[in-house]
Amino acid sequence: MGEFELIQNYFAAGAAPAKGVVLGIGDDCALLEPSSAGQVLAVSIDTLVEGRHFLPGTPPEHLATRMLGAAVSDLAAMGATPAGFTLALTLPKADPSWLEPFSQALAQRARELEIPLIGGDTTAGPLTLTAQVQGWVDPQQVLTRNGAQVGDLVCVSGTLGDSHAGLRLQLEPEQGARLDGAERDYLQQRFYCPQPRLKLGQTLLGWASAAIDVSDGLLADLGHILGRSGVGAQVELTQLPLSAPLKAMAGAEALQWAASGGEDFELCFTLPKRFAGELPRLAERAGINLAIIGEIVAEEELKVFEQQREVMPAQAGFDHFGGAQ
Amino acid sequence: MGEFELIQNYFAAGAAPAKGVVLGIGDDCALLEPSSAGQVLAVSIDTLVEGRHFLPGTPPEHLATRMLGAAVSDLAAMGATPAGFTLALTLPKADPSWLEPFSQALAQRARELEIPLIGGDTTAGPLTLTAQVQGWVDPQQVLTRNGAQVGDLVCVSGTLGDSHAGLRLQLEPEQGARLDGAERDYLQQRFYCPQPRLKLGQTLLGWASAAIDVSDGLLADLGHILGRSGVGAQVELTQLPLSAPLKAMAGAEALQWAASGGEDFELCFTLPKRFAGELPRLAERAGINLAIIGEIVAEEELKVFEQQREVMPAQAGFDHFGGAQ
Repeated sequence: MGEFELIQNYFAAGAAPAKGVVLGIGDDCALLEPSSAGQVLAVSIDTLVEGRHFLPGTPPEHLATRMLGAAVSDLAAMGATPAGFTLALTLPKADPSWLEPFSQALAQRARELEIPLIGGDTTAGPLTLTAQVQGWVDPQQVLTRNGAQVGDLVCVSGTLGDSHAGLRLQLEPEQGARLDGAERDYLQQRFYCPQPRLKLGQTLLGWASAAIDVSDGLLADLGHILGRSGVGAQVELTQLPLSAPLKAMAGAEALQWAASGGEDFELCFTLPKRFAGELPRLAERAGINLAIIGEIVAEEELKVFEQQREVMPAQAGFDHFGGAQ
Repeated sequence: MGEFELIQNYFAAGAAPAKGVVLGIGDDCALLEPSSAGQVLAVSIDTLVEGRHFLPGTPPEHLATRMLGAAVSDLAAMGATPAGFTLALTLPKADPSWLEPFSQALAQRARELEIPLIGGDTTAGPLTLTAQVQGWVDPQQVLTRNGAQVGDLVCVSGTLGDSHAGLRLQLEPEQGARLDGAERDYLQQRFYCPQPRLKLGQTLLGWASAAIDVSDGLLADLGHILGRSGVGAQVELTQLPLSAPLKAMAGAEALQWAASGGEDFELCFTLPKRFAGELPRLAERAGINLAIIGEIVAEEELKVFEQQREVMPAQAGFDHFGGAQ
């Protein structure tokens, strides 16, 4: 047995028997059964590469929580219920001082998100993490990007820009000089340990006409809904929900960070106007704040306003190749 | 849109609408529906890293066919029917002279294996390919590693050692001096373009008691069945099926290569002795030769014989970390 087969030992603890997992780690394939008849499988795969998506030396526990939160967020955006995830882990060497905190944080986060590790592959090479999430969802109600209709309200959950602020604190801690410890912790947690809005996605089944999770940045991600739905939107920046720590740190730039900062992993969704009155109840059921930030229009363009004056967003998104991180 | 989003264009052609794919590339998740009620999902994830699993400069079309063949082989080993695969591709740069032949070979192989590309992720970084395959299988009949019983026959499909010979030809072409062109092509194809035994796996449902695909090497993989089933086996090396090109190239070493060379992607399975008479019919239905090479015994040990004399296999497997490739 090679050094890299031994790595399985680190992850076995996080792969306890779980509902719906017919067969876990240790065979040619893992086996999952649908949670109920008629459900379809939702899958999404994401890769994090050292030096591109995270800095060399990033604490392994932060990598684990960020990777899994971001991956599960894709299930949330479809309204799916998590079933299990696989992990392809490429590591320069089998270093216990890295593997132990990584696997422990991963197992804890997997328990919190109720998504068991069901399989994986470990190889030697430059540090690269690929996670695929599996979930089940009703095909009649699943939230896709292509259902937005003219007149629908554009809504967003939680607060935006916090993760971008957390990233800046990591890169240049002195930018947080005006923050107290709790504020700094909050913003860093938003970056390191994103909370996929699973409950919200499931709550929106049957209500929302389209949904996406905010990973590239609000305007870029809303653009994906518009492109797939063949519609446009008008968004009022001053309606973007901002946290107090973000305002304290970003000052006049807060709206810009909220509009274009990536990786908040909130849900941006469209809601038929006739359901507008339901929004408070949906928010309460999902346990998260929901804000109306704009409206879907026929002209296939995204127009951004600040206090009803049209503005050009300086940076509509996030370039995965040339990006800052 | 970043350079790496554009890569999606190369793969879109290989992602044509396919049966069972409710939603393909372009949303937060892909959606797959079971081929019939009561089926469970089989998944397996595999990573290939440049410099570990393949030499720098390996032709991209060979990487595509080898990666997909190896991945789908895990579905074959469970008796599952392919439903779709995802690809996480990390590349140093978005080079059309690499991407074009890679994506074309991948699309063609995907059509041949009837497994559509349903999603993926592309990032900048050291060349690393991670594929996850999805398939559907009847949970009552699925082939696992843990069902071998004392007295069962140990069987193997096709011929063994060919892929190892193909690898040697790549590393040291002069080793093939005694081969003609057709023999050389055959062995190289066995390495570059493995044929997952999908038809055989599906044929064995309801007959075989355990199965695995030969990826680490016959003895190592049989060892996995024994370990999971809590049994042992006796194997007669002279019963191992060998191809003529392998014999021509390996001479006296042919049995050694067949016993320990990896990546043949044949199926090794155990068959209750009462079904021994069915073997020719199963072989005919699956369109592949099947050989009986040994028997399951109670003592939890793998004993290897050559003309009934016990021998020590020099190398029982293949170390993924320190291995030659």
